[in-house]
Amino acid sequence: MNKKAIILFSGGLDSTTCLAIAQSQGYDCYALSFSYGQKHSSELEAAKRIVKHSKIKLHKIINLDLSDFGGSALTDDAIDVPETETEGIPSTYVPARNTVFLSVGLAWAEVLKADAIFAGVNAVDYSGYPDCRPEYIDAFQTMADLATKSGIEGHGVKLQTPLISLTKVEIIKLGIELGVDYSKTVSCYQANLQGQACGVCDSCRIRQKAFEDASVDDPTAYYKQ
Amino acid sequence: MNKKAIILFSGGLDSTTCLAIAQSQGYDCYALSFSYGQKHSSELEAAKRIVKHSKIKLHKIINLDLSDFGGSALTDDAIDVPETETEGIPSTYVPARNTVFLSVGLAWAEVLKADAIFAGVNAVDYSGYPDCRPEYIDAFQTMADLATKSGIEGHGVKLQTPLISLTKVEIIKLGIELGVDYSKTVSCYQANLQGQACGVCDSCRIRQKAFEDASVDDPTAYYKQ
Repeated sequence: MNKKAIILFSGGLDSTTCLAIAQSQGYDCYALSFSYGQKHSSELEAAKRIVKHSKIKLHKIINLDLSDFGGSALTDDAIDVPETETEGIPSTYVPARNTVFLSVGLAWAEVLKADAIFAGVNAVDYSGYPDCRPEYIDAFQTMADLATKSGIEGHGVKLQTPLISLTKVEIIKLGIELGVDYSKTVSCYQANLQGQACGVCDSCRIRQKAFEDASVDDPTAYYKQ
Repeated sequence: MNKKAIILFSGGLDSTTCLAIAQSQGYDCYALSFSYGQKHSSELEAAKRIVKHSKIKLHKIINLDLSDFGGSALTDDAIDVPETETEGIPSTYVPARNTVFLSVGLAWAEVLKADAIFAGVNAVDYSGYPDCRPEYIDAFQTMADLATKSGIEGHGVKLQTPLISLTKVEIIKLGIELGVDYSKTVSCYQANLQGQACGVCDSCRIRQKAFEDASVDDPTAYYKQ
């Protein structure tokens, strides 16, 4: 029987690369996406399109409305997505988002008896979110090992963050080697309904620069440029 | 301005006592309940009834269907709630439930700038769930301090588990001192729509024995006895 992995799967560049890595390592993959009140819900459409063309055992989209709490430019209509670089933790930070997503992943992992949860967090070319750093991931693992039946029995699920110390350029090069079609992925924080990107938000800027630095033609469709 | 606390609030004996403790300590209280696919959804009705008579700033009920994953007698129709004592971690254990609930609480806490999250976990007279033990709570706190903007700025939310080392008898005595009306609370894993209890599930048995040992008349309405 193959090893099982849950992939936190947004349909963006990082999580799609993560999926390809897990599959290349022989895992049976179970994709987990969230409809959490994000303004850029077309990322979920991207996730569905990618899943269709990948050998995924199951894709679950969990409804969990974090927009009800507000507090982030990604979920709160009263806060605009910034279109220029900002200092410190940006307004696109969604309070405790990775913790919530990993926790729900942990619940599913325990029922599936999954060996791993893959998360495409990245602490190099990233937006400065606290819940993307290695020390956070380590602390989540320690907590998860104490939280679950499988954890205290010594066969708990392992968090896998293969992108955490890669640059965006390295991620793209690795993905292309593994056959990822980045034209299908949506990273933009304010993508339109067709999945076209703005080209000016933080996420677009980081992605654009990475394609440029990797000397790879940017396959992203933009609506603003 | 008063301190703010989020109370993980099921409408059961423990969380209702927790709410009374937080209020006695001068916190403005925000109750957080979950519709997670539990069979005993009448606990949510109990939660709403109790909230009506308590001075609560806001009550949010989050929809997050963990029954989709299955794996627990509390959410999975294919698994009966046990009516006699069992060995080890019982089938009523819901995978990663406290982790998911605390994580969503953490998200709300960060937006509210809350000082504390109160959780009525209890490691003495309890069902043997791994996510009720002090070492688990400590690990969650460590993780939360690394996960959030407020945490890394040094003013993160503090988990408060005032019941963790109390016996059920001590909890009831404390609650009565604080004026808790336990007749309104629902602890039963298979309570009927009127909020009446079975009297035979694990949760009922622990609760019943506690009222008996505390020499307090059991105010619970039962449908099986």
